[in-house]
Amino acid sequence: MAAIERLSFNQITVDKWSLREAVEGCLRHGIPSIGIWRHKVQEAGLQASIRIVKDAGIHVSSLCRGGMFAAAGADERRKRMEDNFRAVEDAAALEADVLVLVVGPANGVRLAEARSMVRDGVQELAEYAKARGARLGLEPLHPMFAADRSVLSTLEQALELAAAHEASVVGLIVDVYHVWWDPKLYPLLAKAGNRIFGFHVSDWIVPLPDLLMGRGMMGDGVIEIKNIRETADAAGYSGPIEVEIFNRQIGEMPGDEVLATMVERFQQCV
Amino acid sequence: MAAIERLSFNQITVDKWSLREAVEGCLRHGIPSIGIWRHKVQEAGLQASIRIVKDAGIHVSSLCRGGMFAAAGADERRKRMEDNFRAVEDAAALEADVLVLVVGPANGVRLAEARSMVRDGVQELAEYAKARGARLGLEPLHPMFAADRSVLSTLEQALELAAAHEASVVGLIVDVYHVWWDPKLYPLLAKAGNRIFGFHVSDWIVPLPDLLMGRGMMGDGVIEIKNIRETADAAGYSGPIEVEIFNRQIGEMPGDEVLATMVERFQQCV
Repeated sequence: MAAIERLSFNQITVDKWSLREAVEGCLRHGIPSIGIWRHKVQEAGLQASIRIVKDAGIHVSSLCRGGMFAAAGADERRKRMEDNFRAVEDAAALEADVLVLVVGPANGVRLAEARSMVRDGVQELAEYAKARGARLGLEPLHPMFAADRSVLSTLEQALELAAAHEASVVGLIVDVYHVWWDPKLYPLLAKAGNRIFGFHVSDWIVPLPDLLMGRGMMGDGVIEIKNIRETADAAGYSGPIEVEIFNRQIGEMPGDEVLATMVERFQQCV
Repeated sequence: MAAIERLSFNQITVDKWSLREAVEGCLRHGIPSIGIWRHKVQEAGLQASIRIVKDAGIHVSSLCRGGMFAAAGADERRKRMEDNFRAVEDAAALEADVLVLVVGPANGVRLAEARSMVRDGVQELAEYAKARGARLGLEPLHPMFAADRSVLSTLEQALELAAAHEASVVGLIVDVYHVWWDPKLYPLLAKAGNRIFGFHVSDWIVPLPDLLMGRGMMGDGVIEIKNIRETADAAGYSGPIEVEIFNRQIGEMPGDEVLATMVERFQQCV
């Protein structure tokens, strides 16, 4: 089993909580790390957010998220890049291990063109991140999100994109929900090595209740989580393991109940 | 545009129709080919089905479907293989271009084990098919079906599996709904050449109304259908193009309305 010291609570799992509430929840449940979302930082203010995190002595495993590079007009693309610059600054200020990048859908351009915009966007953002000591994590999203969230759909594609950059600046976020089905998962993980900047867990329920809001708690689905985690570890990853569950029902449960189950399932299934 | 002579109506699109009604619909709308489902053949009886098809002079582009190889017990796997033998016989008797194989989910075994059962199953079925002059079409299904329908999820995986067999016996069914998102789609299609045994079209609506029953009519979504079709053609495919749309709303429309739209959209978008 993965050591509890590696558990990180991705706060979107209990989206109704503010950053302060989420951090306090982690302290109550002995969870040493948190994955923070930008809308929560904006809600609290950046300086207050930094204080909340520092006062709690909690580790920030990630800031979610930048990306969304493709758009039809140059003005819109520039606006998005500016927002990505702000995300990098926030990630650096919060001392997050990584800024998670969801690269975005084609958004009105051809698929091939969108992928090219993503390459250009990551190139520009990587320079900005390097100068500020921040790291970028490319998260391939399940292919069912290719039309509306990410034209980056496989680990192989993400690895190729990351390989064009320094291994200290651009890496991958491996989320088991997005990659478990991939016939090349294990060899690709083994190859990913020091490019793995983050590791996310949840489960795939059968039948799937909803594309976006139907992820399951670890143990409630079919993903061979421990196998995948062990392969990532063997490849050299030893960082935090974030539990990130988009699920309407779980989101409506009392947050402390969610965290208690999360700790239990992490110890059983990860 | 693809010539109308290549249009095939996959009858699941209007599932309420019997085989006879589906064939008569094709005749009324000048559709020269049909993709037939086994439950419709069973409903009419095999001999009657053969007569319906022969009398109409319609081409049978496919029989749907065999597969579902993986299961925990040897008895259950043998039962499934026997059913696959019957499917091969029916495909041969109906002179279908190809028996479509949906290889099935892991179904209680580990993912790697299921894939191995699929390899073994295809091996055994290929010998049976070859002896009867039937062809098998491996259909990679969208990764969102990996847990409940198919552990064969990518064109690359299907090509590798097919390559272990004679090119006259085992090939691929390329369904744009399942493969459009794949970053390696175009190079893989170019490589597939004479292994392309069938080509299916529909569309991916945004947002997706439903995983299984939410496919769109060509032109209603984001799939770059013509690009994909032209690449398959350039690779050497010149056979029928089946319209296969699992969609609750379309299934409830009057069948003739569906066929009229299908002919129109085929000429505009394929």
